[in-house]
Amino acid sequence: MPVVQMEILKGRTLEQKRAMVKEVTEAITRTLTCPPEAVTIIIREMEKDEYATAGVLNADK
Amino acid sequence: MPVVQMEILKGRTLEQKRAMVKEVTEAITRTLTCPPEAVTIIIREMEKDEYATAGVLNADK
Amino acid sequence: MPVVQMEILKGRTLEQKRAMVKEVTEAITRTLTCPPEAVTIIIREMEKDEYATAGVLNADK
Amino acid sequence: MPVVQMEILKGRTLEQKRAMVKEVTEAITRTLTCPPEAVTIIIREMEKDEYATAGVLNADK
Amino acid sequence: MPVVQMEILKGRTLEQKRAMVKEVTEAITRTLTCPPEAVTIIIREMEKDEYATAGVLNADK
Amino acid sequence: MPVVQMEILKGRTLEQKRAMVKEVTEAITRTLTCPPEAVTIIIREMEKDEYATAGVLNADK
Repeated sequence: MPVVQMEILKGRTLEQKRAMVKEVTEAITRTLTCPPEAVTIIIREMEKDEYATAGVLNADK
Repeated sequence: MPVVQMEILKGRTLEQKRAMVKEVTEAITRTLTCPPEAVTIIIREMEKDEYATAGVLNADK
Repeated sequence: MPVVQMEILKGRTLEQKRAMVKEVTEAITRTLTCPPEAVTIIIREMEKDEYATAGVLNADK
Repeated sequence: MPVVQMEILKGRTLEQKRAMVKEVTEAITRTLTCPPEAVTIIIREMEKDEYATAGVLNADK
Repeated sequence: MPVVQMEILKGRTLEQKRAMVKEVTEAITRTLTCPPEAVTIIIREMEKDEYATAGVLNADK
Repeated sequence: MPVVQMEILKGRTLEQKRAMVKEVTEAITRTLTCPPEAVTIIIREMEKDEYATAGVLNADK
């Protein structure tokens, strides 16, 4: 049942995303005791001008 | 007041999205008894490498 | 594949939520041509002091 | 700790986004008494066919 | 049109939330040039065991 | 920078959540090559009448 939404900065390779969803799913099934089929992951990729901390866009850092 | 966020895979036509927001809004107003003006729908479209189930990207299925 | 997130105000009955997820799922499968099993709906219920429009909390309206 | 997610229509300039994250962060730190470093803002930009109110896409209004 | 979602830790007073939605709405209307009626804010309050940074729950810090 | 939002069903223990955020953070830092401090996780817990698949509430399954 876990539905995971992840905001990451653009620029990761397909290989990195492939490894990430595999290992995050394993971490969830191991710790919450649910089958892998129950885990859904949505990835959203941000441009550097779509993310800010401390009031400053990542594009300006 | 209902605010709806929908993640769907890319590739739907404008006509499909137009019909979908119309019918989803009707379903909500009918079952939750609120006026259509109260319903906001946000659609977010995912690439096949931005969605995974069971630890595998949709792009690899 | 559609993952739907809905923010609604607290106070709907179980019967209303039951009817809503049924009819919203039907609206999506009909318009986006996907099987009902592909549709996931998450409902989040808000208190009146957790929702604002035009800069004013719903609790103050 | 506040994590802010904002859906806005596409078309704002870098300068507008820069001013917006600065002023929204100040508004949050002032009213919730937390340091600016604690505030994260994620901006998601929508096309006109990804946003609907009252059952009608913004692209059709 | 801006739809804002804010995750904050539980414990803020009604007065703080009231001031926050007012000032955040003003910051948005001023910088993105839209009317206050166009701004929707959803607040979601987290318990200390529902928020983690660096792999550690806030409840354990 | 990754901001992770997880919807899970209510009922997990503090110990399970503690292990989960630790292992999910490790999986992300390992596969996306970012420091643990960059990873934020938000957990949202759902009641059984706040989650549906195939048009049926989890509470009715």
